[in-house]
Amino acid sequence: MLARLSLNQYTTKQWSLREAVEGCARHGIPYIGLWRDKVDEIGVEATAKLVRDAGLKVSSLCRGGFFPAHSAAERRARIDDSRDAIEEAAQLGAPVLVLVCGPPVDKDLAAARRMIADAIAALIPEAAAYNVRLGIEPLHPMMVMQRSAICTLREANDLAESFATDSVGVVVDVYHVWWDAELYEQIARAGKNILGFHVSDWIEPLGDPLASRGLPGEGAIDLPRIRNAVDAAGYDGPIEVEVLNPAVWARPGDEVLADVKSRALAHL
Amino acid sequence: MLARLSLNQYTTKQWSLREAVEGCARHGIPYIGLWRDKVDEIGVEATAKLVRDAGLKVSSLCRGGFFPAHSAAERRARIDDSRDAIEEAAQLGAPVLVLVCGPPVDKDLAAARRMIADAIAALIPEAAAYNVRLGIEPLHPMMVMQRSAICTLREANDLAESFATDSVGVVVDVYHVWWDAELYEQIARAGKNILGFHVSDWIEPLGDPLASRGLPGEGAIDLPRIRNAVDAAGYDGPIEVEVLNPAVWARPGDEVLADVKSRALAHL
Repeated sequence: MLARLSLNQYTTKQWSLREAVEGCARHGIPYIGLWRDKVDEIGVEATAKLVRDAGLKVSSLCRGGFFPAHSAAERRARIDDSRDAIEEAAQLGAPVLVLVCGPPVDKDLAAARRMIADAIAALIPEAAAYNVRLGIEPLHPMMVMQRSAICTLREANDLAESFATDSVGVVVDVYHVWWDAELYEQIARAGKNILGFHVSDWIEPLGDPLASRGLPGEGAIDLPRIRNAVDAAGYDGPIEVEVLNPAVWARPGDEVLADVKSRALAHL
Repeated sequence: MLARLSLNQYTTKQWSLREAVEGCARHGIPYIGLWRDKVDEIGVEATAKLVRDAGLKVSSLCRGGFFPAHSAAERRARIDDSRDAIEEAAQLGAPVLVLVCGPPVDKDLAAARRMIADAIAALIPEAAAYNVRLGIEPLHPMMVMQRSAICTLREANDLAESFATDSVGVVVDVYHVWWDAELYEQIARAGKNILGFHVSDWIEPLGDPLASRGLPGEGAIDLPRIRNAVDAAGYDGPIEVEVLNPAVWARPGDEVLADVKSRALAHL
């Protein structure tokens, strides 16, 4: 397990990019999942060097997306931003750019889903040229108006398959999809299209939908079963622990990393 | 629209049963959706008489369900409670008992879904005898640990169809299912199995998942499109406005009812 462990750096949002990289090196966590706002602290080039010098690998870059918008000009601007993100991912050595596809505008979910499909299609040449894969992450339906009109793994699979290219796949994040009666069927279907596997846990009561995640083993999700299904589908890449939670952010980062490691061993 | 309008009485939770019945009569709302805890205020017989004397019809009774439990004895007790609810629905003249199927135990969603299917199967003879239909209501996936392991209309349709009896169908509540990319396909599929249609709206920010609902027209849901789809599927029964929200409960009930009526006309 530890050989595949990745710290999604928003699990230690309290840390700077440099602190997170040094923390992973110190704790023997081989991968790190980066976020663009954190990379901006020191820039892409300096981040790439820092990560390389620390002996780490980048599991993914978060994020491209937020494609639906009222005007064509605004939609082009969103696509351009994701194009920048693809280049950044390539420079950082991140094999995958996570796509948080964006909420609908004007109550029209069908239109939002078409805009998302169009935007991803427009990005495929760039992704292929830079050898960065686009990972469509379905987000929990409670976040449809905040973050993504793509709410289920079935939907993400439908969308990814529609492009029929290795450049587009899906990211399975347990927090978003664990409740789904079709989960195991859709994981098996995703197969080689699975570009990332993110873990946390579901804890109650629910607070802010984005940042109410538990550490692995704290909550209701049958993590071993899902991990086995993702493995059986053929995914053998990094497993990112991504726990967005103010209570975790209030703890010393080193304590969080020790906890992440022991929980990954015990619950995944 | 007004001829099909029903006040789910939890929209005016601040009112007693008697106040809600009198309010509906005063405002010319022909149907009321009852909750068992409110009925308990004066009992089933007195409620039935009160509703009848006011010239109202009952659209549904909420609720049976909460079927998954650790022990067989406890599961039997839950089924017995729903059996009581079927009898109460019959006495009240409610054609439908809404099923909130219940959350999983021990992280096992698949087992919970089996327990739910077994419980509904056990209730069908009673439902048929009393001429009360069981309406499986899929609840929003954010409530899976609080209220129901049945999270999508596809799942509810699968389950309802598995019994192949008129005694079991589904309830479409926009708050729970509006985000689903398969919504219109699953509404069409449900067809004559649609036993109820509940409306509210999705407003942000999300607070308590159960009670963060907006009045029709306040939020993000394309209500006319969903209503048209439900009509086109063949449903011509009452349309229940069910808005659980502390801000609504803090308002004078008469003001809420006037608002419900004008919004039903404008947004449904």
